[in-house]
Amino acid sequence: MHAPHGADLHCRTWQTEAAYRMLQNNLDPAVAERPEDLVVYGGTGKAARSRDDLAAILRTLLTLAPDETLLVQSGRAVGVMRTHEWAPRVLIANSNLVPDWATWPEFRRLESLGLTMYGQMTAGSWIYIGTQGILQGTYETFAAVAAKRFGGTLKGTLTVTAGCGGMGGAQPLAVTMNDGVCLIVEVDPHRLHRRVETRYLDTVAADLDDAVAQALAAKRAGEARSIGLVGNAAEVLPELLARGVEADIVTDQTSAHDPLSYVPAGVDVADAAGLAERDPNAFTDRARESMARHVEAMVGFLDAGAEVFDYGNSIRGEALAGGFARAFDFPGFVPAYIRPLFCEGKGPFRWAALSGDPADIAATDRAVLDLFPENRTLHRWISLARERVAFQGLPARICWLGHGERDLAGVRFNELVADGTLKAPIVIGRDHLDCGSVASPYRETEAMKDGSDAIADWPLLNALVNTASGASWVSIHHGGGVGIGRSIHAGQVTVADGTALAAQKLERVLANDPAMGVIRHVDAGYEEADRVAAGHGVRIPTRES
Amino acid sequence: MHAPHGADLHCRTWQTEAAYRMLQNNLDPAVAERPEDLVVYGGTGKAARSRDDLAAILRTLLTLAPDETLLVQSGRAVGVMRTHEWAPRVLIANSNLVPDWATWPEFRRLESLGLTMYGQMTAGSWIYIGTQGILQGTYETFAAVAAKRFGGTLKGTLTVTAGCGGMGGAQPLAVTMNDGVCLIVEVDPHRLHRRVETRYLDTVAADLDDAVAQALAAKRAGEARSIGLVGNAAEVLPELLARGVEADIVTDQTSAHDPLSYVPAGVDVADAAGLAERDPNAFTDRARESMARHVEAMVGFLDAGAEVFDYGNSIRGEALAGGFARAFDFPGFVPAYIRPLFCEGKGPFRWAALSGDPADIAATDRAVLDLFPENRTLHRWISLARERVAFQGLPARICWLGHGERDLAGVRFNELVADGTLKAPIVIGRDHLDCGSVASPYRETEAMKDGSDAIADWPLLNALVNTASGASWVSIHHGGGVGIGRSIHAGQVTVADGTALAAQKLERVLANDPAMGVIRHVDAGYEEADRVAAGHGVRIPTRES
Ligand SMILES: NC(=O)c1ccc[n+]([C@@H]2O[C@H](COP(=O)([O-])OP(=O)(O)OC[C@H]3O[C@@H](n4cnc5c(N)ncnc54)[C@H](O)[C@@H]3O)[C@@H](O)[C@H]2O)c1
Ligand SMILES: NC(=O)c1ccc[n+]([C@@H]2O[C@H](COP(=O)([O-])OP(=O)(O)OC[C@H]3O[C@@H](n4cnc5c(N)ncnc54)[C@H](O)[C@@H]3O)[C@@H](O)[C@H]2O)c1
Repeated sequence: MHAPHGADLHCRTWQTEAAYRMLQNNLDPAVAERPEDLVVYGGTGKAARSRDDLAAILRTLLTLAPDETLLVQSGRAVGVMRTHEWAPRVLIANSNLVPDWATWPEFRRLESLGLTMYGQMTAGSWIYIGTQGILQGTYETFAAVAAKRFGGTLKGTLTVTAGCGGMGGAQPLAVTMNDGVCLIVEVDPHRLHRRVETRYLDTVAADLDDAVAQALAAKRAGEARSIGLVGNAAEVLPELLARGVEADIVTDQTSAHDPLSYVPAGVDVADAAGLAERDPNAFTDRARESMARHVEAMVGFLDAGAEVFDYGNSIRGEALAGGFARAFDFPGFVPAYIRPLFCEGKGPFRWAALSGDPADIAATDRAVLDLFPENRTLHRWISLARERVAFQGLPARICWLGHGERDLAGVRFNELVADGTLKAPIVIGRDHLDCGSVASPYRETEAMKDGSDAIADWPLLNALVNTASGASWVSIHHGGGVGIGRSIHAGQVTVADGTALAAQKLERVLANDPAMGVIRHVDAGYEEADRVAAGHGVRIPTRES
Repeated sequence: MHAPHGADLHCRTWQTEAAYRMLQNNLDPAVAERPEDLVVYGGTGKAARSRDDLAAILRTLLTLAPDETLLVQSGRAVGVMRTHEWAPRVLIANSNLVPDWATWPEFRRLESLGLTMYGQMTAGSWIYIGTQGILQGTYETFAAVAAKRFGGTLKGTLTVTAGCGGMGGAQPLAVTMNDGVCLIVEVDPHRLHRRVETRYLDTVAADLDDAVAQALAAKRAGEARSIGLVGNAAEVLPELLARGVEADIVTDQTSAHDPLSYVPAGVDVADAAGLAERDPNAFTDRARESMARHVEAMVGFLDAGAEVFDYGNSIRGEALAGGFARAFDFPGFVPAYIRPLFCEGKGPFRWAALSGDPADIAATDRAVLDLFPENRTLHRWISLARERVAFQGLPARICWLGHGERDLAGVRFNELVADGTLKAPIVIGRDHLDCGSVASPYRETEAMKDGSDAIADWPLLNALVNTASGASWVSIHHGGGVGIGRSIHAGQVTVADGTALAAQKLERVLANDPAMGVIRHVDAGYEEADRVAAGHGVRIPTRES
């Protein structure tokens, strides 16, 4: 399955055409990890519940009227209702469970009954754009690590990590873009070779000795280089620690959020899925034991002075469940590096060209650079991305923009569609991992200043306000990157189709959506957010009189 | 605090004026159970987080523009954003927690930090209208019991129940409206006397002997009569069972959903709150032990042949936690009596007259009777309600209407506002306990045909679609009547202000909102719902080709 390209409509409006194309783009073999199972990324994150459900969604979008709205419940089209032209064309709720039932075993039981599916973040909300989506966030994170500990560059440092899947595959390139050396451990050789093909990874080592030798040589030479190693992180990391390999930065992006996706030590990758299916409880225990050993080694590197952080996959929680008491000795990446950006309403703004033409992305790249001539990180990112990022599926771009920036970019793109500079409309969305769209105490809302980590009103308000502001589709998900029970998050996608109405919608959605991040952090007591709210005129009713 | 009455605006539009008045109406001493603590009903269900928060909400509503939306996070005004005239004027998310943190102790910890509040269902969403709100549902339920077991009338039967609070107080009147006898046990004498004043309860007995004597005499005589008894249900019910009192129907509406609100046996009602605050864990244990004894007696009546049901307060779950293994031997009232109505999109439609004039409700009563001349249950209810229901706060009416009916009523009310028949606009809302707005495995979604009890996508889609259809305010809550961890539910209120725009909004919201109930039950495999969908043109995309 590939998304249709070009300037001709299959649906009745570009608002629905965009959903029609982006859903199919999520399942393009160049984009999705396992399109044959409808799995887009993140272990089991799906775009639709079943083949029949996919067909029903696509069929319904083809005839949806400009004042109708399609309702999607965990990847199934359950209704079409008459709304109005300011309303979203699709409303999505995926994987949500009543809290007392929000456990993996209960979720899997309901999934096996055909009643739900795992939506991850952008899989079930149809705005995954391949590994580039995560690359920019990963690039920003490693840049922040460099700024904090290594004088602004990773040159001469070694990063050790694991997990080279849909999102983890961005790590080696993000490290080399910051001029560092990356040694990445991955249990599945195919994943490594795929990243070499897409130029996210430089090379795959022959064995552990080779990998260590190459990594240390590059580190000494100050070369930017990434080396993949086939192996199980629960075995390799303790071994690297035992050998005294001097890692400067240690993190992880194995699929630890789902213990049935993490391959336990001693298990062949080819057997893992079968074993997990046959005895999920026993497999969970083994996976957690392995994660305990894996995280124990990470804490060993921490004790040895390395910069160590959890990269949003819940591995600390699983290691704790697996019996390792010091699992939470290192922080999550959000409080460590990302929260100051969230206070400014910054987050993963992304867009895709429905024309399918890379020239449209080149034009939007120029537009963004022109709009923000002072933003040096942005300029560096866009030029590196142009050089190094291979498009997957519909050409797309991501960059982090804040409150007061996103709406400018959206309205500008809409003008470029209107004046014919671009060949077809642009779809503008973001990850659910954003400043004001998620409650996730092990990741995005870990260690909030006022202790409000688990308050889940915010992502729901985010979804409601985007629905009320003119987004083209809106979603509320549970679980995402950290797993069932651990997060509630919301997404929005808005289409720049060149119309005056779209301009009004973009102005509102792309102001209100990041404003949620500003008010959420004002409410939690962050002074940076206060300053942004005051400077940008974001209203805080409790401060007024 | 009383809601302003009359035809003059304080706010800039009737859409916001309605929220402004209904919030204050929720806290009218004639409506709220403990207005001094901002508690409206249901134990601790609040309308705003604090006095300051209440003031900030009211202040913000006064100047809110017709294209602005106020965001309320657990009873606090956290933002104002620019939207458009089809958007809700207020969006509310109350008491929501990330599932792994969704426990009473964690909720209370966060509440004591000032970070959240308990919103119940219509308390935090500003559409509670006093005990009448629940009276009609209770009347319908007892009518359904009568139809199922007692030949269509409760004449000559005795109902034993407990809990005469905000909602439970509707029970005695609902039973006598069905011509039966009700013996209601309540630990707090003030509650009973208050119900006598409002004519919901006929009399308060001197003691247990007196109560039993009066009840049995009325039962024998076939008289409709309700008798209150001051006492603790965990003591009185076992005693009634031991005495062999022949109860025909047994249920309960103590505040069992919150173990800190249920008064344990042996505890004086005046001491309960203090004890619960000082040692919540010990209090919880004692309350659960008492609930185990209370439910054990209910199962005793079941064994003796009575019709026994859980009336939506989670007492079975608490009794199980308290060690009584047979707690779930009797069903919840929804699968037993209400689900067939939900399949037709039927649920608690309600409205209030912003004029404050009872004549406006009389006119809407007539309009509803005219619209549905064939509906005998409705006619009987409205005439009984006119006779027996004392208004509390703004005059209001409730009746259960289904898909295809609610929109007709809403549009008709809007015409009556437009043509001057009514003195001011009408606010139209409903309980969160509705056909398609709640996931609650111990109550509304107990024992669903396909096992989808805990799937929580539906209430979220309900909130999203109402936001997308023109509702005036929309809310998403957690906990409600069954407690933290046990439910997710959504509310909507739409204002009939007599404009053409309001007519369009009412048409959509009042069709789509109950359509959620129809599609939810179609999806779960209920044939009644299939028939309604087919008959009413409710689209089910998976059935199309
Ligand atoms: N930091 C972020 O911004 C962010 C965002 C979203 C998700 N995540 C999380 O990162 C994790 C990875 O996401 P993904 O999309 O790449 O998942 P994925 O399933 O595509 O990839 C996970 C990879 O880990 C490998 N793996 C599993 N067990 C292993 C082991 N013991 N040793 C070595 N390799 C092992 C798998 O073979 C697979 O290639 C997920 O938990 C995801 O939730 C992080
Ligand atoms: N069936 C429904 O439609 C429905 C709808 C919503 C809520 N409920 C549930 O019904 C329950 C009652 O709601 P409410 O608004 O009336 O609550 P409330 O707090 O106003 O009233 C509860 C009453 O129970 C009394 N009580 C507590 N412990 C007692 C004991 N051991 N013996 C006798 N009386 C005792 C209290 O004094 C109080 O008057 C709640 O749990 C609520 O969630 C039912």
